[in-house]
Amino acid sequence: MKRVAVLGSTGSIGQQTLDVVRAFPQLFRVMGLAAGKNADLLARQVAEFKPDFVCAEKLFPNCQRLSMEEIARHPDVDLVVIATSGKAGLDPVLTAIRAGKTIALANKESLVMAGEIVTAEAKRTGARILPVDSEHSAIWQCLEGEKQRPARIILTASGGPFRRYSSAQLKEVTVEQALNHPSWKMGKKVTIDSATLMNKGLEVIEAHWLFDMPYESISILVHPQCIVHSMVEFADGSVKAQLSPPDMRLPIQYALSYPERLANPRLPKVDWSKFGNLTFEPPDYEAFPCLKLGIEVGKRGGTYPAVLCAVDEVAVELFLSKQIHFVDIPRLVQETLKEHRNIAHPALAEIRAADAWARETVLKQIEGVRK
Amino acid sequence: MKRVAVLGSTGSIGQQTLDVVRAFPQLFRVMGLAAGKNADLLARQVAEFKPDFVCAEKLFPNCQRLSMEEIARHPDVDLVVIATSGKAGLDPVLTAIRAGKTIALANKESLVMAGEIVTAEAKRTGARILPVDSEHSAIWQCLEGEKQRPARIILTASGGPFRRYSSAQLKEVTVEQALNHPSWKMGKKVTIDSATLMNKGLEVIEAHWLFDMPYESISILVHPQCIVHSMVEFADGSVKAQLSPPDMRLPIQYALSYPERLANPRLPKVDWSKFGNLTFEPPDYEAFPCLKLGIEVGKRGGTYPAVLCAVDEVAVELFLSKQIHFVDIPRLVQETLKEHRNIAHPALAEIRAADAWARETVLKQIEGVRK
Repeated sequence: MKRVAVLGSTGSIGQQTLDVVRAFPQLFRVMGLAAGKNADLLARQVAEFKPDFVCAEKLFPNCQRLSMEEIARHPDVDLVVIATSGKAGLDPVLTAIRAGKTIALANKESLVMAGEIVTAEAKRTGARILPVDSEHSAIWQCLEGEKQRPARIILTASGGPFRRYSSAQLKEVTVEQALNHPSWKMGKKVTIDSATLMNKGLEVIEAHWLFDMPYESISILVHPQCIVHSMVEFADGSVKAQLSPPDMRLPIQYALSYPERLANPRLPKVDWSKFGNLTFEPPDYEAFPCLKLGIEVGKRGGTYPAVLCAVDEVAVELFLSKQIHFVDIPRLVQETLKEHRNIAHPALAEIRAADAWARETVLKQIEGVRK
Repeated sequence: MKRVAVLGSTGSIGQQTLDVVRAFPQLFRVMGLAAGKNADLLARQVAEFKPDFVCAEKLFPNCQRLSMEEIARHPDVDLVVIATSGKAGLDPVLTAIRAGKTIALANKESLVMAGEIVTAEAKRTGARILPVDSEHSAIWQCLEGEKQRPARIILTASGGPFRRYSSAQLKEVTVEQALNHPSWKMGKKVTIDSATLMNKGLEVIEAHWLFDMPYESISILVHPQCIVHSMVEFADGSVKAQLSPPDMRLPIQYALSYPERLANPRLPKVDWSKFGNLTFEPPDYEAFPCLKLGIEVGKRGGTYPAVLCAVDEVAVELFLSKQIHFVDIPRLVQETLKEHRNIAHPALAEIRAADAWARETVLKQIEGVRK
């Protein structure tokens, strides 16, 4: 019986995590839940899964109220699912890792902002970081049993709803269009990041830290069918790929059940009569500058990635509330990065300061671009 | 330093094995070579690789002349590459396995004819059978590090030179057309077997024995680009695939270097600008009856698979010498199988008797179909 805590249980990944747990009541026990918004859903989750601890504004009978960090390091918890979005994930990630817990990580910002610190702490305590992103789960699955570091990681990208759009066409896109992802149902932030390809840039940085791979050995291929979730090329030229229908419950379940695999009738199988044609093409770095920005920022390191995350988080919020245009997102990121004075190998406080600086700076800059 | 013997060194797989060895003189030492035909090439191989033992008609100075079986079980040999084609592979396979050697198996007939005996002997002595067929190497690579038996094996097939031909069109095909495989350069026998899809039927039986998989859990997908060499589906629906350009030196090298992977500049890498479109379609069982015959014979077991191998070997010879038509190959196989009285769980002698019976029987039958 694995004792699981789900931080961010009412978000998209949190809900899908609980759907996996629901299928295996004999294998997983929900010890703790944490959610910031959607109190109604949290109440239903508490009623169904009867956790021992809850982090929420409301009090629940028979549940101890704890902070996210208290849940993340609780001795009764074996596995912490980090499903909170944005920079709110960083503190529980560090807390869980410092307590030596295994974490199932769906929050990419914590690795992007503080990958050096997070991976060093995990090394120190022996905590394992199991990826939940479909791409990183694919890479992890392809690396299982391999003795050597791979020669290359090939991250696949759906291309988002605006694949093959020109820069001119991108100027006109609406929030509704950007939220209409062709293959994946996800939270709003990551859906917009998928439309700008910022998500893939963040994933490159995430892959760098998770698999200790130099940026030069991470490639990107646009694969609109979203069946091949990523690939790994080895020293001898052999490539392994992981395939499955686009459904986040598979990588979530793999992280929960690892090293076992569980037969789950709720999970779809690849239907080869539907997916008989898999295509791969290079991404359009010109039309989607966020992708290149992400990779460049990863290479430069220091506090740049924290600035990238912060500006993107603010810019996506502004776009969703229709205060700026779609193409303003990369522009704001780029301009804020230009003004940033980088700190190499930053301490946590410096990362937090860079985050705060970026949020202030971008809010000043939007005066120029606000609709 | 791995001490390697290559049985069938002048054939296609044998030559490519030596090309791999040539790239890593510090890792592999050729202890023994065996070849039946092509004495000139063998002489050049002996001069280059200076083996201690040779199995050949000719005597070589500084080389001990041994039989294939003596080489296969020699204490100075760590790994035996079985690159002989047809039923001639069975004896050295059994000899090597009984001596507890690791074998790199390119000869599928030995497993098709006597899979039950070969795998039982390997279990008894602890000998490892490393597949060299690209499909089985792909499956093996995808299974590495996995704890559980897979839910399904998906063998890919090029479809051969006559993919999408109708039964009527197949009546007219020539030897030259059948030898012109669109993707792979291989020996003549396996090239014709690829054109009839008999090769894929034999590979299903081979996969059954190598991976202990029920026939119901082995599927076939036609994939003309020959980049995905096979796939494995796990209990949770996750699929792993192995990809590489069609070049037999990769699976040969993987079997030689396992569990290491070696960087070999002679091996091509997947060029994604060329292979941006991978297609998968079901095979045409109607137009290519050999495929279904192979699978059915595998399911029935006993001496049927030995009969299948024998008749196919004779029929392909007859087709290559232009004595019968392409479509006579499945017809001869089918008719001989119909007359065969099966023996379940046969002993080796019964398998050999079935082989001899089949060769006699098919030669009687060709009177009716000879051109």
